[in-house]
Amino acid sequence: MYTNEYVDAKDPSHPANLICELCRLFYDKDWVTGTGGGISIRDTEGENPNLVYIAPSGIQKEKLQPWEMFVVELPGTKILNTPNNCPKELTKSYKYKPSACTPLFLSCYNMRDAGACIHTHSQNAVMATLLWEESIEFKINNIEQIKAIPKLEYNKTTQKVEKIGNLENYDTLVLPIIDNVPHEEDLVDDLENAILKYPGATAVLVRRHGIYVWGENIWKAKVYNEALDYLLELAVKMKLAGIPTVKNN
Amino acid sequence: MYTNEYVDAKDPSHPANLICELCRLFYDKDWVTGTGGGISIRDTEGENPNLVYIAPSGIQKEKLQPWEMFVVELPGTKILNTPNNCPKELTKSYKYKPSACTPLFLSCYNMRDAGACIHTHSQNAVMATLLWEESIEFKINNIEQIKAIPKLEYNKTTQKVEKIGNLENYDTLVLPIIDNVPHEEDLVDDLENAILKYPGATAVLVRRHGIYVWGENIWKAKVYNEALDYLLELAVKMKLAGIPTVKNN
Amino acid sequence: MYTNEYVDAKDPSHPANLICELCRLFYDKDWVTGTGGGISIRDTEGENPNLVYIAPSGIQKEKLQPWEMFVVELPGTKILNTPNNCPKELTKSYKYKPSACTPLFLSCYNMRDAGACIHTHSQNAVMATLLWEESIEFKINNIEQIKAIPKLEYNKTTQKVEKIGNLENYDTLVLPIIDNVPHEEDLVDDLENAILKYPGATAVLVRRHGIYVWGENIWKAKVYNEALDYLLELAVKMKLAGIPTVKNN
Amino acid sequence: MYTNEYVDAKDPSHPANLICELCRLFYDKDWVTGTGGGISIRDTEGENPNLVYIAPSGIQKEKLQPWEMFVVELPGTKILNTPNNCPKELTKSYKYKPSACTPLFLSCYNMRDAGACIHTHSQNAVMATLLWEESIEFKINNIEQIKAIPKLEYNKTTQKVEKIGNLENYDTLVLPIIDNVPHEEDLVDDLENAILKYPGATAVLVRRHGIYVWGENIWKAKVYNEALDYLLELAVKMKLAGIPTVKNN
Repeated sequence: MYTNEYVDAKDPSHPANLICELCRLFYDKDWVTGTGGGISIRDTEGENPNLVYIAPSGIQKEKLQPWEMFVVELPGTKILNTPNNCPKELTKSYKYKPSACTPLFLSCYNMRDAGACIHTHSQNAVMATLLWEESIEFKINNIEQIKAIPKLEYNKTTQKVEKIGNLENYDTLVLPIIDNVPHEEDLVDDLENAILKYPGATAVLVRRHGIYVWGENIWKAKVYNEALDYLLELAVKMKLAGIPTVKNN
Repeated sequence: MYTNEYVDAKDPSHPANLICELCRLFYDKDWVTGTGGGISIRDTEGENPNLVYIAPSGIQKEKLQPWEMFVVELPGTKILNTPNNCPKELTKSYKYKPSACTPLFLSCYNMRDAGACIHTHSQNAVMATLLWEESIEFKINNIEQIKAIPKLEYNKTTQKVEKIGNLENYDTLVLPIIDNVPHEEDLVDDLENAILKYPGATAVLVRRHGIYVWGENIWKAKVYNEALDYLLELAVKMKLAGIPTVKNN
Repeated sequence: MYTNEYVDAKDPSHPANLICELCRLFYDKDWVTGTGGGISIRDTEGENPNLVYIAPSGIQKEKLQPWEMFVVELPGTKILNTPNNCPKELTKSYKYKPSACTPLFLSCYNMRDAGACIHTHSQNAVMATLLWEESIEFKINNIEQIKAIPKLEYNKTTQKVEKIGNLENYDTLVLPIIDNVPHEEDLVDDLENAILKYPGATAVLVRRHGIYVWGENIWKAKVYNEALDYLLELAVKMKLAGIPTVKNN
Repeated sequence: MYTNEYVDAKDPSHPANLICELCRLFYDKDWVTGTGGGISIRDTEGENPNLVYIAPSGIQKEKLQPWEMFVVELPGTKILNTPNNCPKELTKSYKYKPSACTPLFLSCYNMRDAGACIHTHSQNAVMATLLWEESIEFKINNIEQIKAIPKLEYNKTTQKVEKIGNLENYDTLVLPIIDNVPHEEDLVDDLENAILKYPGATAVLVRRHGIYVWGENIWKAKVYNEALDYLLELAVKMKLAGIPTVKNN
């Protein structure tokens, strides 16, 4: 199997391999069908924790191979490695392009010191933004699964948003909803404004599009994404059944 | 693979291995996503039938390993073994905490002589508690699948609740619904009251949270949980379609 | 692996093995969860085509083993082989009981010369019988999938119901619905009456219970069951959306 | 394993093998249950790019074997190879018939120079044609997933419909809906008229039946089919929730 300085296909916990493993899982959950969505992991355990691995644009997510990742070094946007450097026998002369999500993933890394960032086209996320079409926030409280979501707070001393625990089930989870735009890279300003305005949020919904979720590392990001999708699915059912998602305690 | 006095990873029917196998199954059924839910098994076939194996807190259920279980000896709450005793290479220095479900599982073991206890965040369970928000009981009758649920009765001689067969399809299945509280361990009083008040129940619903199901052994508990989830799913569909779940015979 | 006169676990196309394979598939489709449902196959390719293999009562369908089948010889009801004959190490001294579906399966074999019979607790089947609660027939037409269902006709010469092709998509598929009773074996009279009254039907719905489907052999029965479940699922969606399932051509 | 001039079962990227692989995937997604639907691939990478592989009629799609394919040479309809040529031990003397979809697949190849064509009985497709029963077009816009669908245009110079990129999320995706007819082969005229009238479409919906999707090669066709099914599923949910699928920009 092909390896180079950035691609070590032998270690299953290498970011490039984890992206492949999780894309297969997310495909089975219908979150990244039809080349939608994407995953990016920062090599927080590696020699250079500023290396970020990102799946390429327009590829079937469930068929990704470790050598197909783009590698970027934070905080910049310079691409250190592209799958186009791989032997032609491997790429079949396909010209890989970086994901349009790249600048959005980088915002999450730079503004929140994230270790991984997940983007899905989950129908639960899209339906929630449609059922609350006039709202710029998604809110839910008093559901046990909320406890899986981190409690974040801006620390004036470190000037960083930090995790201080997890939400309680009676806390109100609030996710900002930003409107979709024609070109995914143009979402950057709105995403960054939402990240700034909602220091407590570990995810941003994009109306008629999907969700961006990040976490301290890939496993945390995966758990947050699963718990949020559970809550979005439940919220859609509640809304359609006439049950308010926010209840006064 | 790591083994110690409490962990024998080689026998697939060992409680620690069964918990791992079933957590993967339950993950696929979306009952324990996002670290939600849990399973506990009492080693009824082993040398000491009072040993109880419990998955730890806040862990991805589908990735559980046999050595990650906490072991408690009934009727007390003393922890005999924790995954924190395992070599650091294995735990990656992660500090495991016992599941917040632990006291609830122990109530089921001590009050009902259960052999296994399952806790899920099933959306069917949560939706049922929301659609019957004013009710403290979930009821359904005249559905064939009810026959998979045990018929339980208090035996004055043995002073125990005993299984005397299975429900008939025309029997009314009644599950108590208790309200959720901020901290899972504080559910104990309400759970125990429900267990006392409903000797015929092999499960308790927790509103806006999920379900606790127990049985004589893990396979019975699994079957009861599956049959109850089937009935809860059907009941939610019936309610939304305007069909009463209880019908006079 | 254990073998005897009736159990040849080495041939994957042996009825006992096919039942196990299909039970795992049906479990994944939520048709036989919680020990519900069952499959029976007649050994039409074997030396004695009157041997019928039937899964036992109250067993987890996805865990069935080939040696666990009861064997009956048509047209009688005499049990030729039971899993209770197997070594105690294998059965763990469990006392197997024949499925309560046994007499119903035998009716399908004797009255229709079926090669296999499937019984599921499919929620689509149950919901259809609830949404058409006042009706004794389920009807649908003008859906392409109807073409997978056989066209059956009573042949006065042979005095048998025979397959004369497949339904057209504009034909109206009619399935009788019989009411459930407390004990599954007491369904026999109603099932037999429905089979007599509906010579064109290859399945019977049981209200608040599920469906019985049969076919010339196990693969036909499987295909009919899949196609019928597709049509029942679609019909439930149509009914809930206010779209009639029967349309005048 | 059996091989002949047209069947090379050893190469996983051979059309006959890809059809088998994808039929298993599509079965799991409930697109081709009960022998419904089908896949056809043109051997665009092979020595004769006019060879078309087509799965036979009325076969369980998830059990297809590579040697079971019919092979046709474009632009004609002459069958170069049939599974009936295979040894009787393999076919068990079963008489294979070409799929009724064959002339429809050939229309897509000849009129659009397609590399693969997919036909499913997806319930999302059928429900969309039922919920918009009076309409001859399905339309949706302002959903991110639309970007996975190709933008096609008639090129007057080459006199061919050519891909000039992908749709934007604010573009309106339009799929023609044709009415179903008793015999699948009689759909040809209506399908060809729809293909002519909608040069921008890479798929045609058949009311009360399913969808035909084609693409430059099998992977493009698969991605288009997945993205369209996502959009049809979402559109059905939106319609049932009272949300218009078309929004003025």
